[in-house]
Amino acid sequence: MLMKEISFWYEFASPYAYFSMMRIGDLCKVKGIDVIYQPFLLGPIFKQQGWNTSPFLIYETKGKNFFRDIEREAEFYGLPPITILQEFPQSGLLATRLTLIGLQKGWGVEFSKAVYKRQFQQGLPIGGEQDLSEVLQTMNVGPVEDLLAQACSDEIKAQVWAISEQAQAIGIFGAPSFVVGDELFWGNDRLERAIECAV
Amino acid sequence: MLMKEISFWYEFASPYAYFSMMRIGDLCKVKGIDVIYQPFLLGPIFKQQGWNTSPFLIYETKGKNFFRDIEREAEFYGLPPITILQEFPQSGLLATRLTLIGLQKGWGVEFSKAVYKRQFQQGLPIGGEQDLSEVLQTMNVGPVEDLLAQACSDEIKAQVWAISEQAQAIGIFGAPSFVVGDELFWGNDRLERAIECAV
Repeated sequence: MLMKEISFWYEFASPYAYFSMMRIGDLCKVKGIDVIYQPFLLGPIFKQQGWNTSPFLIYETKGKNFFRDIEREAEFYGLPPITILQEFPQSGLLATRLTLIGLQKGWGVEFSKAVYKRQFQQGLPIGGEQDLSEVLQTMNVGPVEDLLAQACSDEIKAQVWAISEQAQAIGIFGAPSFVVGDELFWGNDRLERAIECAV
Repeated sequence: MLMKEISFWYEFASPYAYFSMMRIGDLCKVKGIDVIYQPFLLGPIFKQQGWNTSPFLIYETKGKNFFRDIEREAEFYGLPPITILQEFPQSGLLATRLTLIGLQKGWGVEFSKAVYKRQFQQGLPIGGEQDLSEVLQTMNVGPVEDLLAQACSDEIKAQVWAISEQAQAIGIFGAPSFVVGDELFWGNDRLERAIECAV
């Protein structure tokens, strides 16, 4: 029997990826689907489209609706009121690097959820070393300084680079995205469709 | 008792607006919600965002996913396989003008559905006089030449202009959009949310 699986591509700056992160585990568990967690960076992809920041900041009316939409969606999913920092979007680079370490060690998903909650439930920044040190400390997953050093190693940098190349190769242009075989689904609104496709 | 209603903003070039057009009537009927049908043109709004055509043509990877997504969505909604013309997007200007006449005379919704079906189920163009003459003829709603002449009257042109101004004033940036009181919902994926908001 073939293994049923979904690749879940998420970027730490994205509130819609946060919604998917909070939902995908349970939804896939009841259907017997494995989730491959794939943190990535939208920055390089947006740059290729000619954007130097979030399109929600570039396109003002779209952005205005976005901020209201994520408030409504948080409520719809039964999540706490969403908090958006003045400094939106937050850089997900260091969080992505640490997640790659964590995924190898078994705490990557828990860490990702904690980072999202810090940003979108507590309204705290997630881009800096101090921010993520605080997350790591509460998780008790080893010496924080060692993890931060490892996060900046050539090996992890090369992994982040390879992920960006893979994302572009399979046509990813936004977050969250879900890949099931050759099918690419974009957006938290397509999570259920991706799951049906994987079943 | 307050009347429950949703304003449904649709553009004839948009496959996602087509999905909503095929769904909104029945969904609102069972909830006792009135639908205010509001055809409009995205062109002037896209121009303000610096786009001279559909963003799905401007952003190639996003466009590739779009064409696959609408195939999947058509199947999900139990609609016939979707047809997309080489000349995408089609101009919705004349169809919008004729719909405004039809809405006053009681056949605007039926006409809108027929135009969408012609484009997205039969794969036929909808931008020209001949295209829409064929639609009007099958509907038997009066002398086609008179309707086409009226569609180009100053009164109807002024109405289309006023609608564009209204769309921009309320922050519409894409199609379909749904307005319930002060709440703006964007996209076919938000139809159910808009309905819950109106209930």
